[in-house]
Amino acid sequence: MHTKHNFGAGPCILPQEVFQEASQAVLSWGNTGLSILEISHRTPEFEAVVEESCNLLRELMNIPEDYKVIFVQGGASMQFGMVPYNLLNENETAAYLETGVWANKAIKEAKLFGHVNIVASSKDSNYTFIPKDFVIPADAKYFHCTSNNTIYGTQMQAFPKSPVPMVCDMSSDILSREVNVADFDLIYAGAQKNIGPAGATVVIVKESILGKVDRKLTSMMDYRVHIEGGSMYNTPPVFSIYVAMLNLRWLKAQGGVKEMERRNNAKAKELYDEIDRNSLFKGTCAVEDRSHMNICFVMNNPELEKEFLKEAEAAGCVGLKGHRSVGGFRASMYNALPLESVQVLTAVMKAFEAKHA
Amino acid sequence: MHTKHNFGAGPCILPQEVFQEASQAVLSWGNTGLSILEISHRTPEFEAVVEESCNLLRELMNIPEDYKVIFVQGGASMQFGMVPYNLLNENETAAYLETGVWANKAIKEAKLFGHVNIVASSKDSNYTFIPKDFVIPADAKYFHCTSNNTIYGTQMQAFPKSPVPMVCDMSSDILSREVNVADFDLIYAGAQKNIGPAGATVVIVKESILGKVDRKLTSMMDYRVHIEGGSMYNTPPVFSIYVAMLNLRWLKAQGGVKEMERRNNAKAKELYDEIDRNSLFKGTCAVEDRSHMNICFVMNNPELEKEFLKEAEAAGCVGLKGHRSVGGFRASMYNALPLESVQVLTAVMKAFEAKHA
Repeated sequence: MHTKHNFGAGPCILPQEVFQEASQAVLSWGNTGLSILEISHRTPEFEAVVEESCNLLRELMNIPEDYKVIFVQGGASMQFGMVPYNLLNENETAAYLETGVWANKAIKEAKLFGHVNIVASSKDSNYTFIPKDFVIPADAKYFHCTSNNTIYGTQMQAFPKSPVPMVCDMSSDILSREVNVADFDLIYAGAQKNIGPAGATVVIVKESILGKVDRKLTSMMDYRVHIEGGSMYNTPPVFSIYVAMLNLRWLKAQGGVKEMERRNNAKAKELYDEIDRNSLFKGTCAVEDRSHMNICFVMNNPELEKEFLKEAEAAGCVGLKGHRSVGGFRASMYNALPLESVQVLTAVMKAFEAKHA
Repeated sequence: MHTKHNFGAGPCILPQEVFQEASQAVLSWGNTGLSILEISHRTPEFEAVVEESCNLLRELMNIPEDYKVIFVQGGASMQFGMVPYNLLNENETAAYLETGVWANKAIKEAKLFGHVNIVASSKDSNYTFIPKDFVIPADAKYFHCTSNNTIYGTQMQAFPKSPVPMVCDMSSDILSREVNVADFDLIYAGAQKNIGPAGATVVIVKESILGKVDRKLTSMMDYRVHIEGGSMYNTPPVFSIYVAMLNLRWLKAQGGVKEMERRNNAKAKELYDEIDRNSLFKGTCAVEDRSHMNICFVMNNPELEKEFLKEAEAAGCVGLKGHRSVGGFRASMYNALPLESVQVLTAVMKAFEAKHA
């Protein structure tokens, strides 16, 4: 059993039950007499895995029927390019909300394929807040936003009413809270937070927005090819999808996204309350935009940070070091992280205060 | 332990020792106290995995210093597009050797980015042989070939002297025999045969051929971005690379590529000899082009094929059904398949002959 509390930003903690079952499948999977690592993706057994994974996502996120769900490779970084490549002609303009490094990278790739209108940005304040008063032009081809910003600990608590198709990078908070998929036209997410291990990427797309660009698309970057191939146009990342299925089963058994949201709210409250109460610590971003997935905080006296990190590590808390562009600490608290892990961390904070305040 | 002899075409058999160690790492990896599935790719522990994997490939294949080795995602299918995208301008022509469905797909993608000159093709004979008398134009941007054709059971036993950079899809026979990497300028291979599990792709590229196309490249399709990022421009397929490392360690411990070639020759001889001797069976492709990785054969009386497949399965032989475009049987015999498995198969063939001849 694990002795660590994994606060890493991703690839991140998954449920212990999932590790157990995945470990067994690497030795021998079900009744196949084979390892999941040597199974052909064209077997009925694995085809059932892809089907169940897609169906679980549909059920858990209440995805409307006119949306397709596919697994692809390459992570969100590949989607930064695939979205404009599939949706934006050279002479057209897409609207982007710039809320951090990932949004910025998405913008950079979009500029290779068409024009970009950055409708709002919090770059000048190191992305410590989510811009809210912006207008999405009605003639934009689509609007792109990032629902949660791992590096800065900000999260969109509400999404705008968009007059054009809305595309969202939900890599770091998909399945952590209820969203209305019908409000979006394309959602993408690298698997390695709340979906499963690294190596797979989920795309949820309203089929009617596809097939409208002029350029000829190379097969692997064409959403329609992956849709038509049922996520198996070519050999998929078999093990990553299999573990995603196990994780989605776990999520459903725990009570679904609604229950995850309840737990994530409780975990976030536990830590934010302590950050706000404790005289040694402070949060780094706008209170109204605080993320429930990644909580960034620093110490009033930065000289103590090294010692605190050491004490947290001694208590089994790993992955807490903040991103270099923010400093301090970042506690990532994805679905599989139990409240007990957060309580261990807040206990260390309390003890540290008693020692130093 | 396994009870099956896995003749599947891929994803395929890997060594039992690799399954054992990978299974353990899914529970708890090394001294990290964490599962390999929840480890950050930015940890020193995982950075060491990527480095060792690349170094093992360099050592095992004797890769010259001016070549870069990277792990990417998307399989060979992604490379079908990435190769011309990175190497071929719109007004330029690349030379392709058409030896099967995979070569054909590579040609299709190349045509999206420039001109293609098919220097030779065996399409009219359903790809049952490798064309040999062809000329590679000296003004082609590069020459592309497929070293082994899984579907038809053909393999290039020699490579042409190319007057232009030579690109090779070695997905299904990389590490199975000694090749002189210096004869090529770019080699790519989906991992899921002799490298590791599905989800990773290896690219070996002579750096000097890159950076010469006019188009602006989207980051994830730009070899230079992955080279600069040390295969970690974005989150890599952590587990797939980790298992590849385990497999490459195994390969080295067994005696390297030279020893694999010796074993693969012995396995191929065992089965081809039986196909040629046995009155019920016959091979499907030109004898001089026979693959040592995928052996395709049929029965003189096709009505017996179903029964033979059943008897082979009863003996534990799985994955033997031939591809629909060839029919009959396909025995894929990648590095990790032991000679004993092939002997089980030839014993079934002998017994079947005794019963039916």
